[in-house]
Amino acid sequence: MTDYILGPDPADPKLTRQVDGIDQDGNPVDTSVVVERPLTLFLNGQEIVTNMTIGDYPDYLAVGYLLNQNMLRQDDVITGIDYDEDLETVIVRTERETNYEEKLKKKVRTSGCAQGTVFGDLMEKIEDTKLPAGAVLRTSWLQTLTKAINTTDSLYLQAGAIHGCVLCQEDRPLVYMEDVGRHNAVDKIAGYMFLNGISAADKIFYTTGRLTSEMVIKTVQMGIPILVSRSGFTAWGVELARETNLTLIGRARGRRFTALAGLDRIVFDATAEEGEEEPARLRRKGSLPPDAA
Amino acid sequence: MTDYILGPDPADPKLTRQVDGIDQDGNPVDTSVVVERPLTLFLNGQEIVTNMTIGDYPDYLAVGYLLNQNMLRQDDVITGIDYDEDLETVIVRTERETNYEEKLKKKVRTSGCAQGTVFGDLMEKIEDTKLPAGAVLRTSWLQTLTKAINTTDSLYLQAGAIHGCVLCQEDRPLVYMEDVGRHNAVDKIAGYMFLNGISAADKIFYTTGRLTSEMVIKTVQMGIPILVSRSGFTAWGVELARETNLTLIGRARGRRFTALAGLDRIVFDATAEEGEEEPARLRRKGSLPPDAA
Repeated sequence: MTDYILGPDPADPKLTRQVDGIDQDGNPVDTSVVVERPLTLFLNGQEIVTNMTIGDYPDYLAVGYLLNQNMLRQDDVITGIDYDEDLETVIVRTERETNYEEKLKKKVRTSGCAQGTVFGDLMEKIEDTKLPAGAVLRTSWLQTLTKAINTTDSLYLQAGAIHGCVLCQEDRPLVYMEDVGRHNAVDKIAGYMFLNGISAADKIFYTTGRLTSEMVIKTVQMGIPILVSRSGFTAWGVELARETNLTLIGRARGRRFTALAGLDRIVFDATAEEGEEEPARLRRKGSLPPDAA
Repeated sequence: MTDYILGPDPADPKLTRQVDGIDQDGNPVDTSVVVERPLTLFLNGQEIVTNMTIGDYPDYLAVGYLLNQNMLRQDDVITGIDYDEDLETVIVRTERETNYEEKLKKKVRTSGCAQGTVFGDLMEKIEDTKLPAGAVLRTSWLQTLTKAINTTDSLYLQAGAIHGCVLCQEDRPLVYMEDVGRHNAVDKIAGYMFLNGISAADKIFYTTGRLTSEMVIKTVQMGIPILVSRSGFTAWGVELARETNLTLIGRARGRRFTALAGLDRIVFDATAEEGEEEPARLRRKGSLPPDAA
């Protein structure tokens, strides 16, 4: 078994709800579904965003969101994080006075969706970023990691309909976050890293989601040099990964994967005998039919 | 084979790109990845949003987005849709003068992500909606539909990393849209329906994505009484479906499914012999391991 610093807690009664319905034959079923609730985030006096989340780590989500939106700087001193469960709000307070009124306005002018919204800003920041060459990814680690992650008792295995992201080091998954919100799982890991002073340069980021431009930008911004997904690529994601020297590995299932950027970091030490096809019961969202890989 | 009115066109060279990389043994691979490009939408003189899209139906996407954001009304007369491929813009013009400055501002105050953004507004509109009871879903149709959709030659089968939505009637898939953007596929179908005067009350909506509150709201707003997904549920999605009398079917794979709302519309006419387990090669994203279904 894996010793997570922080792992999923599918037994937490706040995260799922039992719902009754029927199956394909009309028989009654009682099934577990993931909870989804709003969380409104304030930075000092300013309302920033309302996220739909499972609500397990409002502090990490709040800080990670602000970091990934460039509203919180690495050298900012956080003086308080106040979460109010009843009001469904979280307030992050910093020593530095903040005012993102102009940024929030600009967001509207350039875009109304989360993806487009942050894009202009983030692009500016990562434009000149080159991730350092030092990090290494052994293919044997990758096999150990994917197996450990897929067999971890999670909300996904219990209720489905959820994204997962895992911060890893070598062959060890360290922090496994899940969320209904597309990027909440990423943001929660970013918040965890910031609040606990975790280094990024020696880490591997694993996600169940697709390797879009936005996912690549967030990983680069977090300073993590290696991004691995069960799922596939978009052309722009590949392009940005190449420009920033991010190692980009997709369609990672069982022994198989496809690497499309940052190939120099990969060390091929897994032997064919160790590797095996992924058993069907471990397949999950993002799995491609064999002929599409 | 299925006769789509409008189906995927995986052979369109604009939608995918060949990229070279390596596989798990370091051997060179040449693989197909989906394109992702920005499209900035204007309504009359006003810039509304920049969406990341594969870019295949900018007109349907634009109109569907505006409808689903309540910026275009069912009785609006569209006087022109101008798409400029080089500028990556699409302009929708209406007889009615429009100004959503206040709405766009409000978006920022209440939320910064696409999900939260539209929420306040949409909730108001669907609050008193009750979908009519007349429509029917036969379980035999469901089997035919899922098989036809899964075996359709699509961008998903060719390159992965893409969402799919299908407008269906009885056991026939009619319009199959794919997109990298989370809701673009839905919006393109809404735009198609509006521009071609397609009725909603006798249709079934199939999606590869999760049945979240937002997906339920959009389907209800489109007036479609039955929503089917390969993927799972969130608690709020189930709650909203029950309130609006939407038939909500998830985890639909092969013969199996789970229905959690609007059960009265389901007619159980599929025999066990017709049904079969879904072959492994047809599994795709959203598939749950058998023990989680």
